[in-house]
Amino acid sequence: MRTLLIPPGRISSVAAEVCAAMSDPEATSRVREPRPDQNTAQVLRDMANRLRIQSIRAMCSLDSGHSMSCNSAAEIMSVLLFHTMRYKQADPEHPDNDRFVLPKKLSLTDAVTGWCGQGLGAACGMAYTGKYFDKASFRVYCLVSDDISDGSVWEAMAFASHHALDNLVAIFDLNCVTHGGSSPAAYCTDIYQKRCEAFGCSTYVVDGRNVEALCHVFWQAAQVKNRPTAVIAKTLRGRGMPNIEDTDNWYGKPMSKERAEAIIELIESQIQTNRNLTPSLPIEDSPEISIGDVKMTTPPAYQIGGKLATQKACGLALAKLGHVNERLIVLDGDNRNTFSEVFKNEHPERFIECFIAEQNMVSVALGCAYRGRTIAFASTFAAFLTRAFDQIRAGALAEMNVNLIGSHCGVSVGEDGPLLMALEDLALFRAIPNCTIFYPSDAVSTERAVYLAASNKGMCFIRTSQPETAVIYTPQEKFEIGQAKVVRKSVNDKVTVIGAGVTLHEALEAADNLSKEDIFIRVIDLFTIKPLDVATIIFNAKATGGQIITVEDHYPEGGIGEAVCAAVSTERDIVVHQLAVSGVPQGGKPQELLDMFGISAKHITVAVKCIVMD
Amino acid sequence: MRTLLIPPGRISSVAAEVCAAMSDPEATSRVREPRPDQNTAQVLRDMANRLRIQSIRAMCSLDSGHSMSCNSAAEIMSVLLFHTMRYKQADPEHPDNDRFVLPKKLSLTDAVTGWCGQGLGAACGMAYTGKYFDKASFRVYCLVSDDISDGSVWEAMAFASHHALDNLVAIFDLNCVTHGGSSPAAYCTDIYQKRCEAFGCSTYVVDGRNVEALCHVFWQAAQVKNRPTAVIAKTLRGRGMPNIEDTDNWYGKPMSKERAEAIIELIESQIQTNRNLTPSLPIEDSPEISIGDVKMTTPPAYQIGGKLATQKACGLALAKLGHVNERLIVLDGDNRNTFSEVFKNEHPERFIECFIAEQNMVSVALGCAYRGRTIAFASTFAAFLTRAFDQIRAGALAEMNVNLIGSHCGVSVGEDGPLLMALEDLALFRAIPNCTIFYPSDAVSTERAVYLAASNKGMCFIRTSQPETAVIYTPQEKFEIGQAKVVRKSVNDKVTVIGAGVTLHEALEAADNLSKEDIFIRVIDLFTIKPLDVATIIFNAKATGGQIITVEDHYPEGGIGEAVCAAVSTERDIVVHQLAVSGVPQGGKPQELLDMFGISAKHITVAVKCIVMD
Repeated sequence: MRTLLIPPGRISSVAAEVCAAMSDPEATSRVREPRPDQNTAQVLRDMANRLRIQSIRAMCSLDSGHSMSCNSAAEIMSVLLFHTMRYKQADPEHPDNDRFVLPKKLSLTDAVTGWCGQGLGAACGMAYTGKYFDKASFRVYCLVSDDISDGSVWEAMAFASHHALDNLVAIFDLNCVTHGGSSPAAYCTDIYQKRCEAFGCSTYVVDGRNVEALCHVFWQAAQVKNRPTAVIAKTLRGRGMPNIEDTDNWYGKPMSKERAEAIIELIESQIQTNRNLTPSLPIEDSPEISIGDVKMTTPPAYQIGGKLATQKACGLALAKLGHVNERLIVLDGDNRNTFSEVFKNEHPERFIECFIAEQNMVSVALGCAYRGRTIAFASTFAAFLTRAFDQIRAGALAEMNVNLIGSHCGVSVGEDGPLLMALEDLALFRAIPNCTIFYPSDAVSTERAVYLAASNKGMCFIRTSQPETAVIYTPQEKFEIGQAKVVRKSVNDKVTVIGAGVTLHEALEAADNLSKEDIFIRVIDLFTIKPLDVATIIFNAKATGGQIITVEDHYPEGGIGEAVCAAVSTERDIVVHQLAVSGVPQGGKPQELLDMFGISAKHITVAVKCIVMD
Repeated sequence: MRTLLIPPGRISSVAAEVCAAMSDPEATSRVREPRPDQNTAQVLRDMANRLRIQSIRAMCSLDSGHSMSCNSAAEIMSVLLFHTMRYKQADPEHPDNDRFVLPKKLSLTDAVTGWCGQGLGAACGMAYTGKYFDKASFRVYCLVSDDISDGSVWEAMAFASHHALDNLVAIFDLNCVTHGGSSPAAYCTDIYQKRCEAFGCSTYVVDGRNVEALCHVFWQAAQVKNRPTAVIAKTLRGRGMPNIEDTDNWYGKPMSKERAEAIIELIESQIQTNRNLTPSLPIEDSPEISIGDVKMTTPPAYQIGGKLATQKACGLALAKLGHVNERLIVLDGDNRNTFSEVFKNEHPERFIECFIAEQNMVSVALGCAYRGRTIAFASTFAAFLTRAFDQIRAGALAEMNVNLIGSHCGVSVGEDGPLLMALEDLALFRAIPNCTIFYPSDAVSTERAVYLAASNKGMCFIRTSQPETAVIYTPQEKFEIGQAKVVRKSVNDKVTVIGAGVTLHEALEAADNLSKEDIFIRVIDLFTIKPLDVATIIFNAKATGGQIITVEDHYPEGGIGEAVCAAVSTERDIVVHQLAVSGVPQGGKPQELLDMFGISAKHITVAVKCIVMD
């Protein structure tokens, strides 16, 4: 959970810093044998101590830090960075570089903390991409440490072994560091060995302080075929720090400058060489790819008046887009009814089955999209994405390019009951920084949303619905992020009604009914909930007497209504009336539920009349 | 994830329905031997078939359903309900009844679907409560099925074995039913056996269709000491249904009435007896308890002007309340700095260590609080509660009584960086139906919040902060849910500033500074964010020219600002200016970050001046 994703480039800059601090910067070629010679081993030990010193220094300058656990992994880091991993120090973004995912707070350099990731799940996504999409030689290493108790580790392990990710090495740093004392089964390498074996890994137990043993075990891992490797490394927290090594009460706490200096002096006294090691170069066998090519080749093939569920239109759009760009991939969490099936049938080699493990699915998607190797769409019931909130949040903080699709939103899902109804997903995604939220209302706008999401940077969320709704746009209609559509308009409009998805169709029905009584309303389709088209909302609200009604298949909190309230909050003459789903819903027929929870055409009609007669 | 928590009472009503449908309702006493006699075995088989018929009927009447997986578990259900479990059919809420947690969609009766729960984690909470708090004989059974790939299952397993929950039996229904086809390792009982053993369970593999074998294995489980039991039951989906048993494409889909009737007729033809079995009575050894006794015995021991972090005051309040009520318990996820340590030191026997596995922690808390056996407070960094959004959501839908504490909120947490800063937790909890959200601003109100949460029904969330803030209330100040405090007021006030937590103190500082320039502002401390004190907000806004400034250590989306905007959205003459944290934050000194992200006294001062000079 507290995970940092470090691209090898960043790591190499860490390594470079360490090297720069030495008086003899001359590099020695890295030995690729299973075991390093004595000289190399000593250099690796010295590099580990240099990493240790860097870590203590960084911690002291930050007044906070986790040097205890960083120190425990120093030998592992040293061996990976200077012996095992292949990467170009000068080209950190090179697609053939080995990947390293570090799920502990590494205080080596400030730059690193800008990168946050998803640990083993993200590593699985990178390894899957390497093995099945790129068919390349790069390998993926992931350190598992503080997050060892986290269930998502085992979701990832099950995924890795099911998909035979033999290019993945998970290193369990059993250093017994956690905020509250001993982990369950801390130091019990035996238990973790059994668990990793039971989850289908080729598993090795190793002394995590022994650089020769580490070199050997990573060499062994590279020989394993058709399953991932787990390395159970027994280490010591705070290693190398007198009176701190292997004790409690130091986790995440700074130490005095004097104490730090004394410890650094002691560690320095153990450094015997002044040599450097450079990493081996990667094998350059990744294909050249383009993820920019997502132009729509033919307009949506829907005609006004036709009927289709937006979640079905979404599946069809993905399948169509899959023919345009061969790096488009779709992940799903063991669902038949989300229509990612359509994509799976047409592009089976680019569909990733993630089973009922949504946290891992989102992490895998982040890993697949990492470094621009794929355009990833992860799809499941919108309600199930609540399970992955933390992964979504961390992915957004790391500015990852990933697209999430949440189907079966709102009470309109009908019979399956409240657990399956997403009524808080807009609140979730609106609170994700820089996330673009699409909420299309018909098949044409859904297809446009999929194309826009595919080419848009950063995280995108597409909210889709189960009921069949009418096509209201022509195939030629243009859509842009942040541009709402005014879909019903007259000079006599008294109220602006704002809807999206099923509620837009309720608003249109209300408009039809009201027009028979010579009451006219303006209707706005938001298309994107974030960014919100504030200008269109304010302009039309002012043109309709400052009256807005929002209607949404979502709880009132954090949804469309509040977004609109906030958007007009500094306008004295605009008022907003919110129609939304209050309280705990229940199962039933979709149309009955829209009525029961006050978001149907009938309720919009009454709300409009109340305003008009006021 | 798609979990139903069924209290035995509800189950017994299901059982009663089954029995009522029979022509000979005379009950036969249940045999408690390891293996049932031939007669009893046949009755159990017949009961399984009756459950199967009920399930098909319910599915047909609902137009949706999951009878396939229900059918696979019919023998397991029959043996548990009519042979193994001890409970009073007439007293479903009896504290000594065995518990049954069913994480699959059981379509047997409508009543059941009102109960939603958290699967194995909740079962762990019940078992922990039974073993350590009640020291009682009741046992807990949990069926794991569709959610078998979910990592939270393994968090729960690790918890159960770490805490030696020998009163817990997890039944893995390996029926191969999932929405998208085969689970990974479906049918591979061997793999699940290894996994359960590696996670510390006494593990048995059994033919899940064989009632004698099931009776025996549950009897064996009752002999196990100091570790939980896992029963790996190999079953068939859609069992008993010709052309459906063990095939794809039927999951969650209704079948035609004709087909259903034909299948029911076939199953009925296999029923050989017309007898009934009644469950054994429970051993009544739970203590009599009261969770209502949470009156504050002495007022908060803080003096105005003193300084204390609200997260520390929260820990102290829990420890104090622990002396008043002996059923108060605290759970934490492996954190030292959340101050639940204080409680742990004073009441070690009522502290539950949940390690870094927040999903499971929340589920365990729900299980502990179930049936009013404890007053449970689960505490961790507010940011980590995003990991448990789905558990929180499902717990609220099931109307569970549980209290969650989120510490280290907002950018004011400082150096540790954005991953540890909760800036979306208010959006999360506001979107939870009927959740009460406390956001206290000083030590006195924090202690009051803890007491109010302890005695309040439903889910409560308390948001606490790391910076030391001044005590602003006297120990005698009374607090109520939904009542804000006007903490600064004069007849000349031009603006109402609304804050909470650290931002309230920034608002007070701004008020002090502005008063030197003869600009006066009203300051409101919300105390609870949900329910919101709308009347106080509107009254004071109107008294200050309709001008409101909200200032919060949270993203603008879904937080205090939007809550206030929505509350005043139908008031033409009130405008709201939002100050909140925009974009992705970074680490730094707390006060610098408040400044950098525009929520410090300085920014409030400027915002007020802009309004006043407008």
